[in-house]
Amino acid sequence: MEAVAEQSKSALKKAEKQAKFAADKAAKAAKKQALPVVGGKKADEIIGITNSKAENFSAWYQEVVLKAEMVEYYQEISGFFVLRPLSMHIWSTIRKWFQGHIEELGVEEASFPLFLSKTSLDKEKDHVDGFAPELAWVERAGDKKLDVPVAIRPTSEAVMYPYYAKWIRSHRDLPLRLNQWNSVVRWEAKQTTPFLRTREFLWQEGHTAHLTEELAGKEVLEILELYAGVYEQLLAVPVVRGRKTENEKFAGGYYTTTVEGYIPSNGRGIQGATSHCLGQNFSKMFQITVEDPQNKGQHVHVWQNSWGLSTRVIGVMVMVHGDDKGLVLPPRIAQTQAIFVPVGINKNTTPEDRKKHEDQMEDMRATLKKVGVRSQSDWREGYTPAWKFNDWEMKGVPLRLEFGPKDAAKEVVSFSRRDTGEKGTIPIAEIGTKIPELLETIQADMYKKAEASFTEHRKKITKWEDVLPALDDKHVVLIPFCLDGKCEDRIKELTTRAEDNRDVAENQKLPSMGMKSLCIPFEQPEGSELVPGETACLNPECSGKAQKWVMFGRSY
Amino acid sequence: MEAVAEQSKSALKKAEKQAKFAADKAAKAAKKQALPVVGGKKADEIIGITNSKAENFSAWYQEVVLKAEMVEYYQEISGFFVLRPLSMHIWSTIRKWFQGHIEELGVEEASFPLFLSKTSLDKEKDHVDGFAPELAWVERAGDKKLDVPVAIRPTSEAVMYPYYAKWIRSHRDLPLRLNQWNSVVRWEAKQTTPFLRTREFLWQEGHTAHLTEELAGKEVLEILELYAGVYEQLLAVPVVRGRKTENEKFAGGYYTTTVEGYIPSNGRGIQGATSHCLGQNFSKMFQITVEDPQNKGQHVHVWQNSWGLSTRVIGVMVMVHGDDKGLVLPPRIAQTQAIFVPVGINKNTTPEDRKKHEDQMEDMRATLKKVGVRSQSDWREGYTPAWKFNDWEMKGVPLRLEFGPKDAAKEVVSFSRRDTGEKGTIPIAEIGTKIPELLETIQADMYKKAEASFTEHRKKITKWEDVLPALDDKHVVLIPFCLDGKCEDRIKELTTRAEDNRDVAENQKLPSMGMKSLCIPFEQPEGSELVPGETACLNPECSGKAQKWVMFGRSY
Repeated sequence: MEAVAEQSKSALKKAEKQAKFAADKAAKAAKKQALPVVGGKKADEIIGITNSKAENFSAWYQEVVLKAEMVEYYQEISGFFVLRPLSMHIWSTIRKWFQGHIEELGVEEASFPLFLSKTSLDKEKDHVDGFAPELAWVERAGDKKLDVPVAIRPTSEAVMYPYYAKWIRSHRDLPLRLNQWNSVVRWEAKQTTPFLRTREFLWQEGHTAHLTEELAGKEVLEILELYAGVYEQLLAVPVVRGRKTENEKFAGGYYTTTVEGYIPSNGRGIQGATSHCLGQNFSKMFQITVEDPQNKGQHVHVWQNSWGLSTRVIGVMVMVHGDDKGLVLPPRIAQTQAIFVPVGINKNTTPEDRKKHEDQMEDMRATLKKVGVRSQSDWREGYTPAWKFNDWEMKGVPLRLEFGPKDAAKEVVSFSRRDTGEKGTIPIAEIGTKIPELLETIQADMYKKAEASFTEHRKKITKWEDVLPALDDKHVVLIPFCLDGKCEDRIKELTTRAEDNRDVAENQKLPSMGMKSLCIPFEQPEGSELVPGETACLNPECSGKAQKWVMFGRSY
Repeated sequence: MEAVAEQSKSALKKAEKQAKFAADKAAKAAKKQALPVVGGKKADEIIGITNSKAENFSAWYQEVVLKAEMVEYYQEISGFFVLRPLSMHIWSTIRKWFQGHIEELGVEEASFPLFLSKTSLDKEKDHVDGFAPELAWVERAGDKKLDVPVAIRPTSEAVMYPYYAKWIRSHRDLPLRLNQWNSVVRWEAKQTTPFLRTREFLWQEGHTAHLTEELAGKEVLEILELYAGVYEQLLAVPVVRGRKTENEKFAGGYYTTTVEGYIPSNGRGIQGATSHCLGQNFSKMFQITVEDPQNKGQHVHVWQNSWGLSTRVIGVMVMVHGDDKGLVLPPRIAQTQAIFVPVGINKNTTPEDRKKHEDQMEDMRATLKKVGVRSQSDWREGYTPAWKFNDWEMKGVPLRLEFGPKDAAKEVVSFSRRDTGEKGTIPIAEIGTKIPELLETIQADMYKKAEASFTEHRKKITKWEDVLPALDDKHVVLIPFCLDGKCEDRIKELTTRAEDNRDVAENQKLPSMGMKSLCIPFEQPEGSELVPGETACLNPECSGKAQKWVMFGRSY
């Protein structure tokens, strides 16, 4: 065990060094790119993303989130990241949207402390054991040792539920539905990746208590639908709604529902967000009971849910939409939806003409502001329009609006879509209606494109030998599955490329990673290939009968 | 020193025990109060606030915030509190309001890590020294010792400014204006009080960088005005805007501006929120420079500001408005602005009549919702209307709306104002206009009342011998002051009641606490009693000349 720990530690160190190297390199590149153009030299060559999304996806991702100014590596402590305004705009848009919806449902906001005491952790060891290796411990304040060490919350069940037991005194106190927006700390040993796996992340965690399983179950699905809404309506990312298998559900819970995403570039599935029914497990642990209104004198344990959505969603969005020019942002969550770039304005332009041009642009911006469009204008001096185009493309701004004397003469503004590169003109008199429409079109088209890709790569498989080729073709697969946990473990082993095949695989750039179950989709495929309880489970070693189509894939 | 530490430790233990005792007592009382009425017994006697605001202010405060369900003591770790929905509604209302305003100013949102490394802390020792005794240290994650210990941020200057140095490469990157909403940890040794002094608290911290002192100074005041707006427009609490003396300013900064509140019950001043100009102190420490656009080749250090507003504001609001019945909430920040209580509905009411009554009430609620009024209806069974009245009064709901068959017959709803107790009726047909108006009237009246009290207790003093009597009469005082730091220290000593006077004071319940400077009000009193540089400083031992009227007081 010790040796393994040492090994993974050294792997981690190596990974961290690589990440830091990449970060430094990117920072240097960023510094370069900020140099103004001197003496008419074309600066276009020294800007932009240097890694190819198709060829080196992981490096591409890290370069994009850095150069687009979404994150900054926190040099002081590895595994931590600064979220810059472009990211925080996305998160706060999601927050407002989700908060509005849960308020309508009757969920209230609360704020519980950052720390858990060792004493209360010891009380519910089972739940905590999974988090134990990742707990950050405070044992000293100032120069005084604390009597009892405290851990920073990795999640707040153990912080909150003692108070649920105190506050819930009667069935009239139900449902109790609280949510908090906070950050949690999980001191990961694995390599960290911006947004996807970080030692601190922002999230919301909802914790609710209900009288019956039915009421709890209804909420689980309502929240899951809101999570799907965050992906589909805001981030233009399609997801599959489903239930986790027993192997993949939240350890302390009863069942877990999930929205699952798909990364086309590497064909990997990615968990989007989960909404858990905890059943009565925690209410038994924390003694949260009420008198049964149907059976006076009898006490029942309440039914609990917990559900969380984290800044991971931003990473998924970047991976799905980005391209070799950088970030591509869906308009609804873009901090800047449209960027005005003046063209044809140069040293020969008179100050009067320049002023007039500026005023026209500001008028357009004011018109757009009135209809709720967030625009900026880029009057930075010393940069060519082409350099600016690249810069804003890298940052993912959905719509570029070029405006020059020629446009002014025709009373139009020229546009260029970030997602498709499509170009055209819009009469200035119509921008108040046409540009909001165009932004919604971009939003819809981005979703459609991602949806088509996910649909195309979600493949129904009925022969075992088709599994590995499908994974190598960047599919996630739907297979008839018996739902047994041991069978699931075995499927992962069977789809992991054996040592002796690795060299071949590496030459062909095929991953060795085995597949795991992503979810049991609520929407089961049509067709007669699976008759529950009769059709055989796809695993050739399994003698069980298939119960459901289950989505499997290589995954994050 | 050790002895002193021991002494203060034992005092702390004692204080904590007292607080816990109070909390337990309050919790027991709360449990009692939740018992339904059985057999027609009057439950009114066992509900409500037991401490008098006038006679035992501190106990009254702690009882109110607990029983009104604003906070819960975190039993697991002392000095921490759970903020319950009623508090979080206030905080999130403030957050939305402030966030909207700073966005308009061009401030962007960011999120920096929770931790500071020991290495970076050591770099800027001077700034950190003040916080050192309160830093919570993480030295272990899981069962691994960290190579370098990390501290939880007590504030984020040292976390953020290395990145300001990195991001600010040219004057075109200015201003850089970032704000984050987070929680910080200061492991206070002093006794904690909900909202006012807690070991973790929620706040926003804005950190900005500007090219010139003038631009920085302009922002300092714009933000201060927003802080005043939070108090005056949302919380109905009057404040005095001013500048801190050198003694009282933020240690690392250039100058500090502040909004100062006043607690009528004990005549103490309380710092509301501060907006600091840091000058170039931090930009020198962190080497944040740009090329001077006026002098090519010359580098200048940027001018920085920082400003913060915390959940303390909620405590100030409770202290100013609350009364012996409990909390009194200004309508703009009340989670429930109007509570419908059915009256005259009893065992003899037919189910049809009851249903009709319920429907009428729901119709009214729908009407109010349309005009943006947040209302609830209290149909809890087993409680008398009188018990419900008390319960909602304790929770501070601004407006009670009673509705019974008699009201229905007259097509009116009866109201009772929480702030004044005033009663009346409103025709149902007019509630959509009259109730929003009434809520705004309540908001305005609460502010006026608090304003009158602050104005009345802000006393211009020109004779030293009038100072102590004024303080004992619960005034804060405006005195001609030389602005010298040592003189200020001496004033505090001179106004601290000497040991031999303490017995007398204690018999008369007069505090021994000396006064400190609260601020140099921007709005200086009119009148010829102070000629700057000529009038003597009020301190009889001081030979200096007064420069300004300065507000002094006993304070939090």
